[in-house]
Amino acid sequence: MKVAITTSSFASIDSSPLELLEAKGFEIVQNPYGRKLTEEEAISHLQGVDGLLAGLEPLNGNVFRQCPQLKAVARIGIGMDNVDMKAAEKAKIKVSNTPDGPTDAVAEMTLASALTLCRKIIPANFALHHKQWQKSIGLGLKNSNVLFIGYGRIGRKTAELFRALGASIFVSDPALNQSDLVLGEKFVELNDGLKSADIISLHVEGNDPILTAAEFEQMKDGVIILNSARGSLIDENSLIKVLESGKVASAWMDVYPKEPYVGKLTEYKQVLLTPHISTYTVQCRRDMEMAAVKNLLRDLGVNL
Amino acid sequence: MKVAITTSSFASIDSSPLELLEAKGFEIVQNPYGRKLTEEEAISHLQGVDGLLAGLEPLNGNVFRQCPQLKAVARIGIGMDNVDMKAAEKAKIKVSNTPDGPTDAVAEMTLASALTLCRKIIPANFALHHKQWQKSIGLGLKNSNVLFIGYGRIGRKTAELFRALGASIFVSDPALNQSDLVLGEKFVELNDGLKSADIISLHVEGNDPILTAAEFEQMKDGVIILNSARGSLIDENSLIKVLESGKVASAWMDVYPKEPYVGKLTEYKQVLLTPHISTYTVQCRRDMEMAAVKNLLRDLGVNL
Repeated sequence: MKVAITTSSFASIDSSPLELLEAKGFEIVQNPYGRKLTEEEAISHLQGVDGLLAGLEPLNGNVFRQCPQLKAVARIGIGMDNVDMKAAEKAKIKVSNTPDGPTDAVAEMTLASALTLCRKIIPANFALHHKQWQKSIGLGLKNSNVLFIGYGRIGRKTAELFRALGASIFVSDPALNQSDLVLGEKFVELNDGLKSADIISLHVEGNDPILTAAEFEQMKDGVIILNSARGSLIDENSLIKVLESGKVASAWMDVYPKEPYVGKLTEYKQVLLTPHISTYTVQCRRDMEMAAVKNLLRDLGVNL
Repeated sequence: MKVAITTSSFASIDSSPLELLEAKGFEIVQNPYGRKLTEEEAISHLQGVDGLLAGLEPLNGNVFRQCPQLKAVARIGIGMDNVDMKAAEKAKIKVSNTPDGPTDAVAEMTLASALTLCRKIIPANFALHHKQWQKSIGLGLKNSNVLFIGYGRIGRKTAELFRALGASIFVSDPALNQSDLVLGEKFVELNDGLKSADIISLHVEGNDPILTAAEFEQMKDGVIILNSARGSLIDENSLIKVLESGKVASAWMDVYPKEPYVGKLTEYKQVLLTPHISTYTVQCRRDMEMAAVKNLLRDLGVNL
C-alpha cells in the first residue's frame, strides 16, 4: 500500500513516525513542492495512494472523485476546514485528526509572543545589535487584564499559563457562562471585555471576522492583540488603521487568510509575524506525527 | 531638605513616587545626564543633598567624604555592589534597597527570553517582514530540562514559571541541598546539571565567572544560556567560541560587565541582547520606586 505525506517537514526532526510506516511495509510518497499543495497538485500527488497524512491542502469532492484508491486521511493537527467531511463520507474515506497534539505548543507560543511584545524585546535587541542602549518600560503580565475570545481546549490551556504569571483572565465565549469557568476566570460580554483588556487573544473556531472596526473602537489605547487561531478572524484593513493611530500598540499573527503571507502587515514593525509555527516544537511535531500515523494505520486496517 | 535621584527613568510612567516626595516638601535634584553617573559626576550631583534615590553609580568612601550632608541612600532595586557599606556605616549614612520589587519582573523577562530563543521568534519575524516564509522547528519548554545555577529569591520565582509550563527543574546551588527543594526540583552537582540541561539560567550572587571554557565543554550541543544576573558571571571570549562552534545554540544577556554594552556579542545574531531591562515594567518600576521613596523618608526621619 502507498501513503502520501503532504506536510513538508514530516519526520524532519525525529524519524520514528516514518520508520513506523516503513516497518509496516508502506511505500511513501513525499510532497515534492515543499509547501501547501493546490487542488490540482493534490490530485496529481494522490494518484494510486491508499492513505494520506494531510496538511492544509484542499481535500474536497473533486479531489476524492479523482483519487478513487484513497481510503483514509489523517490530518496532522486539529483544523479540518480543508476537508469536505460530507464528500469524504460519500467516498467512504475515513478521516481523523490529532486534537490533543497542538494544545501545549500553541499555548506556549501565544505566551511567548505576548511576552515578546509586552517587553518590547525585538526593538531593544535590534538597537543593541547596532550598539544603541535603548531602555524602555514594558508591560508586566502580573496583574494585567487578558481577554480570551473563544475558550476551547487551546484557549483554556493558554489562559492557564497566563494565570501562572499572575494575569487576570477574562473570557468571552457565547457557548459558555460563568458557571463553566472554575479557575477564577471572569466571564464577560465581548463589549465589556474589549473595554478593559490590556491584551486580547483569539481562540475562536470558524472563519468569520471577530475583530473589525467596531470592536477595535471599543478597546483601550495601547492594547496588544494575539492571533494564533485563524487569519480571517481579524479584518486586516481595520487593524492597520488602529496600528497607525496607536490604539493598538502591537499585535502578533501566526495565521493569515492566505499563506505564505506577503501582505501589508509586513510593513509594520510593531506587528510580530511568525509563519504558522505555533505547533513547530520538537515535542509537538513528534507527538502529532506519531498520533496521525497511528490513526492512519488504524483506519487502513493495519495492526499496530 | 534635598533629595537627589540618579535613575534616569524615575517616575516617568507613574508620577506618584515623585508626588509623595513633593508633598513632603522635598526639593528634587534630577540626574542631568540620562545615564549612570561616574564617581566625579556623583560627587558633583550630591552636593548639599540629604537623601539619594540611587541607581548603580559608585557610592564609595570618597563620594561619602565629599558629600557630608548625605544622610540616607535608598537603592531602587536589589543589587548593593555599587555601595561601600562599611564606608556608609562610617559616614553614618543609612542604606536601604527594595529586595522584593524586581522578583516577578525579572522572572517574567527570563521566561520571555527563553521562549523567544526556543521558538526562534526573532529570525522568523525578520524573514516574514522581508516576505520570506521560513518555518523552523523550535524547542518546547514542556518536558525540557532547565538548570538553575543559583537559587535565591529570583531563581526560585523563575523556576516556578518554567515549572508551570511543564519544564523539569534542576538546581545547582552550593548553599542548598535536596531537602531545601520542595516543589519537585532536582538538586544536582554543577557538572551533572551542565551535562543534561537544554536551558541554563544564571541566578548567582557575586561577580566571579561561573561559566568558562571548562563549563561550556560539558554542556549538551544546542544548549541555550540565559543571564539576567551579572555580566561578569560568563567569560565572554569562551562564550563566543561555543557560539561559533554551535555548541551553544543561542543566549540571552540582559547584564554586561560594562554598561552600556558595545562589545563583541553585538556581532552574533543568535544572541538576544537587552539593555538591562528585566525590571522595566510599569508594575515593577512603580512598586520599587514607591518602596524606595518610603525607605528614604523613614531613614530621613520623615513621617509617612
